[in-house]
Amino acid sequence: MSGSTYGTIFRITTWGESHGKAIGVVVDGCPAGVVLCEEDIQKFLDRRKPGQSRYTTARKEGDKVEILSGVFEGKTTGPPISLIVRNEDQRSRDYSDIASYYRPGHADYTFDAKFGFRDYRGGGRSSGRETIGRVAAGAIASKVLNQLGISLCTYTTSIGPVTIDSVDHNEIFNNSVYMPDAAAAAKAQTYLEDCMARQDSAGGVIECHIQNIPAGVGEPVFEKLDANLAKAIMSIGAVKGVEIGDGFRAAHSCGQQNNDVFHYDENHNLTKLTNHAGGILGGISDGSEVVVRAAIKPTPSISSSQQTVNRDGENIEISIKGRHDPIIVPRAVVVVESMAAVTILDMMLVGMSSNMDNIRKIYG
Amino acid sequence: MSGSTYGTIFRITTWGESHGKAIGVVVDGCPAGVVLCEEDIQKFLDRRKPGQSRYTTARKEGDKVEILSGVFEGKTTGPPISLIVRNEDQRSRDYSDIASYYRPGHADYTFDAKFGFRDYRGGGRSSGRETIGRVAAGAIASKVLNQLGISLCTYTTSIGPVTIDSVDHNEIFNNSVYMPDAAAAAKAQTYLEDCMARQDSAGGVIECHIQNIPAGVGEPVFEKLDANLAKAIMSIGAVKGVEIGDGFRAAHSCGQQNNDVFHYDENHNLTKLTNHAGGILGGISDGSEVVVRAAIKPTPSISSSQQTVNRDGENIEISIKGRHDPIIVPRAVVVVESMAAVTILDMMLVGMSSNMDNIRKIYG
Amino acid sequence: MSGSTYGTIFRITTWGESHGKAIGVVVDGCPAGVVLCEEDIQKFLDRRKPGQSRYTTARKEGDKVEILSGVFEGKTTGPPISLIVRNEDQRSRDYSDIASYYRPGHADYTFDAKFGFRDYRGGGRSSGRETIGRVAAGAIASKVLNQLGISLCTYTTSIGPVTIDSVDHNEIFNNSVYMPDAAAAAKAQTYLEDCMARQDSAGGVIECHIQNIPAGVGEPVFEKLDANLAKAIMSIGAVKGVEIGDGFRAAHSCGQQNNDVFHYDENHNLTKLTNHAGGILGGISDGSEVVVRAAIKPTPSISSSQQTVNRDGENIEISIKGRHDPIIVPRAVVVVESMAAVTILDMMLVGMSSNMDNIRKIYG
Amino acid sequence: MSGSTYGTIFRITTWGESHGKAIGVVVDGCPAGVVLCEEDIQKFLDRRKPGQSRYTTARKEGDKVEILSGVFEGKTTGPPISLIVRNEDQRSRDYSDIASYYRPGHADYTFDAKFGFRDYRGGGRSSGRETIGRVAAGAIASKVLNQLGISLCTYTTSIGPVTIDSVDHNEIFNNSVYMPDAAAAAKAQTYLEDCMARQDSAGGVIECHIQNIPAGVGEPVFEKLDANLAKAIMSIGAVKGVEIGDGFRAAHSCGQQNNDVFHYDENHNLTKLTNHAGGILGGISDGSEVVVRAAIKPTPSISSSQQTVNRDGENIEISIKGRHDPIIVPRAVVVVESMAAVTILDMMLVGMSSNMDNIRKIYG
Repeated sequence: MSGSTYGTIFRITTWGESHGKAIGVVVDGCPAGVVLCEEDIQKFLDRRKPGQSRYTTARKEGDKVEILSGVFEGKTTGPPISLIVRNEDQRSRDYSDIASYYRPGHADYTFDAKFGFRDYRGGGRSSGRETIGRVAAGAIASKVLNQLGISLCTYTTSIGPVTIDSVDHNEIFNNSVYMPDAAAAAKAQTYLEDCMARQDSAGGVIECHIQNIPAGVGEPVFEKLDANLAKAIMSIGAVKGVEIGDGFRAAHSCGQQNNDVFHYDENHNLTKLTNHAGGILGGISDGSEVVVRAAIKPTPSISSSQQTVNRDGENIEISIKGRHDPIIVPRAVVVVESMAAVTILDMMLVGMSSNMDNIRKIYG
Repeated sequence: MSGSTYGTIFRITTWGESHGKAIGVVVDGCPAGVVLCEEDIQKFLDRRKPGQSRYTTARKEGDKVEILSGVFEGKTTGPPISLIVRNEDQRSRDYSDIASYYRPGHADYTFDAKFGFRDYRGGGRSSGRETIGRVAAGAIASKVLNQLGISLCTYTTSIGPVTIDSVDHNEIFNNSVYMPDAAAAAKAQTYLEDCMARQDSAGGVIECHIQNIPAGVGEPVFEKLDANLAKAIMSIGAVKGVEIGDGFRAAHSCGQQNNDVFHYDENHNLTKLTNHAGGILGGISDGSEVVVRAAIKPTPSISSSQQTVNRDGENIEISIKGRHDPIIVPRAVVVVESMAAVTILDMMLVGMSSNMDNIRKIYG
Repeated sequence: MSGSTYGTIFRITTWGESHGKAIGVVVDGCPAGVVLCEEDIQKFLDRRKPGQSRYTTARKEGDKVEILSGVFEGKTTGPPISLIVRNEDQRSRDYSDIASYYRPGHADYTFDAKFGFRDYRGGGRSSGRETIGRVAAGAIASKVLNQLGISLCTYTTSIGPVTIDSVDHNEIFNNSVYMPDAAAAAKAQTYLEDCMARQDSAGGVIECHIQNIPAGVGEPVFEKLDANLAKAIMSIGAVKGVEIGDGFRAAHSCGQQNNDVFHYDENHNLTKLTNHAGGILGGISDGSEVVVRAAIKPTPSISSSQQTVNRDGENIEISIKGRHDPIIVPRAVVVVESMAAVTILDMMLVGMSSNMDNIRKIYG
Repeated sequence: MSGSTYGTIFRITTWGESHGKAIGVVVDGCPAGVVLCEEDIQKFLDRRKPGQSRYTTARKEGDKVEILSGVFEGKTTGPPISLIVRNEDQRSRDYSDIASYYRPGHADYTFDAKFGFRDYRGGGRSSGRETIGRVAAGAIASKVLNQLGISLCTYTTSIGPVTIDSVDHNEIFNNSVYMPDAAAAAKAQTYLEDCMARQDSAGGVIECHIQNIPAGVGEPVFEKLDANLAKAIMSIGAVKGVEIGDGFRAAHSCGQQNNDVFHYDENHNLTKLTNHAGGILGGISDGSEVVVRAAIKPTPSISSSQQTVNRDGENIEISIKGRHDPIIVPRAVVVVESMAAVTILDMMLVGMSSNMDNIRKIYG
C-alpha cells in the first residue's frame, strides 16, 4: 500500500502530485445532512495558500476547490465527497535538474529506495501540496464538529528561537505567522528576514486546542485519542515531534505537580483545576480542552550551497533553485488543525457504540 | 470498537485486566518458519516484571508466559500465536475503595464517561499490566527483526531533572533505571529516594534506536514510518510526547544546520554525515539509525493526600493505598522497544509490494 | 497477515489448532453493559459440539468455555472479552501419518504451499474446530442483537438429494440434522446411513433468517450488508456457495416477478408484499427478513480408498483413518448463524453515524 | 462510514453519482513500475459502456477516463492513481419524478432509511454507473496480474432460462451477450426481444476463470481467497448469489465424487485430476484454475406498470420512464472480472510475507 487513506469511519483518501494535473481527496463516511458548499472548503484552503506573504513561496495559484460528488441540494448525502483542486502554475522546468540528485532533508532518496524511481517534479507526492487534500477534508470535519459545539483554535507558538509570551486569540490572524502575540510575531518576522538574507530557513512549533469535546472520546489501548492525534500530526511532512498537554515537560515534573485535581464546580459539573494532561486520560478525553503540539523542522529547501550525492554515485555540491518558503510553519497551522479535526471526528464516530445505552438511542 | 488490535500485516490483539484471570495477546501474521519458544518471550517479559528493584511495585508475580497456538515443532506456523500470562497475585481487596472515586491522573473517570462503569480493580484494562501483551508481541517481532539483521537498543535518557551525559551500551543493564551512564543512574536513584520520601513520583524520557533498518521502509502519506511509531509509542499509557531524531530541537534549528548531508563513503555506500532526521525522510527510512524518543509522565498513583471527586458528586480528599511504582520509566523501556519493534516489522511486511521488482521475486 | 481478525467495530480474532493446547477468540468492541456469563456462550458451543449423534465424530470433548477478561460483575465492560476452550481429547497419534501426504479436499497441500510446512495434527488451523471461536463470538453477538429485538433462526434445508418441503420452527431441534421438516429429516437420516455404509460423505444447504433487523443497515458500495454476509459465510470451511433471498433462482426469473412490491399496511407501516430480495436492496436492509443460504460441500475425509500424492513426489493410494463426520451440515448450522450474527451486529454498529440526526442523539 | 474503500494493500476508493459531475476511483498501493496509460483503462471501460447493443441503455456517453495522478513517464510511481470519468449525458429531468416514490427492486427506500434523504437523480450512488470506478481499477489490477502470467476470462453462462451448452473462448466477444456459445447467444437474444416486448427484464449468470494463479494465495480463516471473492462479487449491485467451483451442486454431491484427486503429472508437477473445488482449498489457491460464478437479478427498472409507495405514505401505481437496460448481465461481465482481478491481486500482495523465505528474498 502507499497508505493514502486515513480514518476508520470518517475516512479520507488523498491523491496527487505537486506538478501533476490535480490534487484531491475523497472523504468517505461523512454523515448525511451536513450543509456544505465549496466556499466552506475554500476558506480552509485559503489559509494554506501560497503567496500570502513574503515568507511563503511566490507560486501563485488559485487552489480553487471543486466538489465532484457526495453533496446534493446543498447537503452531504452520506456517499463519498470527492474534492479536486487543479494544479495551474506548474513550471516543471524549474525542477528538471533535481531528477539526478538527492536533496538533503527531502524524500528524494527514500522514494527512490522504496519505489525504484520517483516523480521528481516539485517533490511529486512528497511535496507540501499533498496537504491540500488534508485541509479540504479538515474543512468538512471542522464543519461537522462545529455543529456539535466543538471548535478548534490553532496557532504558532514559536519560530526559530522566538517564542510567544502571551495568547490573544484576536491577534492570530493579524500577522503573517499566525502567532497570538503581536510582539513575538514582530520578532519572528525580523528573525525570518535574517534567515532569508543568509539563504537559510527556520522551523517552529504549532499548538492546537480543541474546545468542548465531550468526555469519553478515544479508545483504551491502541486507538487512544492521543495516539491517533500523534499519528495524524506526525504524518504531516516536516513534523518531528508531537506533545499532548505538558508533553516533554511532564517528564521532568513530579506526580504531585502533574496530577490534575478533579473538582465539582458550583454547578455540579465535573471539572479539573489544571490541565497538564491536555484533556486526555488513559487515551480518552476527560471533558477539558485537548491540547496537542507539533514541532516543525526548518524548510529543507535552502538556496545556499549544500553537499549531497547524485544518482550516478558521485558526491556533488548543489544550490537549490525554485520557489520555496523560508518557513513552513505559518502554512502548516491549518494542516495541523485539519488533521486534528479529522481525527477527533473519526474517534467520535468510532466511539458511538461504546455502551448499550448509546446503541439503544439509535436502534432501541 | 475498543481498539485492542494494532498493525496491518503483523497484527497484535491484546486483552486482559490487571486483576482478571489472565492477560494475553494474539499475534497474527507472523511469518511461518521462525524458531520460537516460551523462553524467547519470557526474556522480554522479565524486563518489565515488577519487583526487580525498590523503585518498582512490591507485587510479586511470576508473569510466566504460555504459548497456546501457532508454534509447531519449535517453529511459527503462520496462523496466530496466542500467548497467555495468568494473573497470580491479585489481592483485589486493596483496590475496593477506588470503586467510588476518581483518582487524579488516572483513567477512572474517562472509563466511566465512555463505558458507563468500569472494572476498578487495579485499574482494570488501563493498568500498566496491559503492556504485558505488547511486550510478549514485541519479543516475537524483535526475533524476526534480528533474523533480518535489525536490532533495537532502548534506554532511559532522563529521570526527573537528571539527564544522561554519555552513552555506554554496556552500562544499560547494570543499573535499575536502565541508563547508559553510571553517574547519571546514581544521581537518578538519589532523586528517586527523595521522591519516595516525599510520597511523590517522577517521570522521565526513553530513547529507542533501531539499527540496520534498510532504506525504503514506511509509506509516503498517512502511513509514514514516523507517524506509526508516534502512534505506537503514544498509545503506551503515561506517554505524553514523542520525538523522531532531533524532535522539538529541530523546531529551533535552521535549515543549514538541520539538513543531513548525503555522502558516498569510501565503499560507495550512500550514507549521511549527520542524523538530525532520526533516520526517516518523508516518512520513509533512509538507511541510517532510526531514533525515537518518548516522554513519560510521573506515576499518577502517589500516596500523599490529594483532592478529587467521588461518583456521588462530592469533592473529597484521598490518599491512595496499594503497591505502586514511584517511577514507571525503567519498566516502560522494554514496552517502548516492543512497540517500536512491532511497528517496524509491520511496516516492513506492508511495504514488500512497493514495486514490481519485489513482487517478481516472490511470484515471478 | 494470516487474516484471523474479522469485523470493523465488533471485531473478533480467533486462534488455535485442532490439537494444540486450546482454541479461543478475542471479542473486541462489544458494547459495555451487556449481561453475559459463560452459560450464554456454552449454549451456542453445545450446538456444534461433537458426539451428539451418530453422524458426528466420536471425539468426546466438553468444549467448556472460560471467560478470561472483559466481563465484570456479570456485565461486559467494553474492553476485549477473551474466551478460551481447552482441547482435551487430542489423540495426536491418530493423525501422524497424514504428515507425509496431502488429503484430497483438504487444505494440507495449500498450507504447505503457503507457509512451507504445517501443523498436520487433525488439520491444525484448518480443522473444523477453528469454528469454536466463531461460535463463541456469535453467542455474544446474538445476545446483543436479542436485546435490540433482533433474532436469528437457522436450519438445514437439504442434505445430499433430500430437500425440505415445509418449515416448522418447532421441529428444528427435534432431529439430529436440524431440519424444520420431520419427514425430510427422516429421509436425510436414511440417506446418511447409506453414505456411511458406502464409506462416503454428504453435503447440504443451510438457511439463516434474521428477523426484525431495522431498515438502513449496510453500506452502499463495498460494505454492503449482503457482501459482508457473503464473506462471513464463505469464510467458513466447506462453504462453496452463498445466496441472498432467491439467489441463483433470481437469475432465471424476470423483473415483473422478482421485484418486491412496496406497500403500506393498515397500520401505515412500510412493508413488502414479497421478499425475493431477501431483505436487502442496494446492500442495505429494507426492514423485511434477511435471508442467507450456504452450500456446504461433502466432508472431504472419507474412509474409502483414494488416490493422492505425498510430499516426496509420489502418487499414492490412501485410506483416511481417524474420527470424521460423514456430514458437516448439522454442526455447521450454528456456525452459519454465528457468522451472520457477528456480521449483522458489526454493520449495525458501523452504521450508527450515517446521518447527523443519529450523531446528535449521542453527542447532541 | 459509507464503505467506498476496498482492499488491504491494493486498495481502491470509488466515488461519484450517476448524475453528478463525474465518477472516479483512487487506486492506492499499486506497485511502482507498471507501464500504464489511459488506453489500458479505456479498453476495460468500453466493455461496460452503454449504447453498444439494443439491449443496453440508449444513453450515449464517451466515458472517457483521465489519469490525474500516480503515473509518471508512462509508469506507475507507487503513490495513488486517481482516475476520473466526467458525466456528460445527464438529462436529470428524466428522473425528477422518482424523487417522491420508491421504485421496487431499487435502493431508493433503503437509502432514505439510512441517510434521511438521497440523490435521486438516476439512482445517485446506487446507479450502475458506480461500477465505472471498479472497472477502471480492475483494468489496472489485470495489467499487473498479466505481467505475472495470470489471466482472467469471464463470460455469461445463462440469461433467463437460456444456458450455454459449450465453451468456445473465441465466441465470447462475437455476440452482444458475451456468451461463449453462439447458439445459446442467439436463443438468449430471442428471449430478450420477448422480454422487451412484454416491458419486462431478465437476469443471468456470469462465470469468471482465473488462470495461472500460483498455489498459496489466500489466508486460512476470515481472509480466505473465496471469502474475499464472495464479498467482492456480492458487492456488485444486482448480484444475489456467488459460487466457487461446483458451488451449490457440491451440496448435493458426495465426498467420493466431490474430492479432487491430487496427481503428479509426467513432468512431476502437482496437479488435480478434477476441479470441483474451483481452485481453492481451505481458502487458499491450489494452483488450478479459480472459478467463481455470480447470479445477477433481472433489471429492476421495468416500464410496465407496478404497485409501490410514495414518501407521503400512499400506495400508488407507477410506470418507470427513462433509459434502462432490459438486462444488466452483458455489461456486468467486465465488472465481475474487475472485482475478481482486484481481489486476487490484493490477496497476492497481502500474502507476500507468509513465510521467512519470502521475507528474506526482499530484505535478506
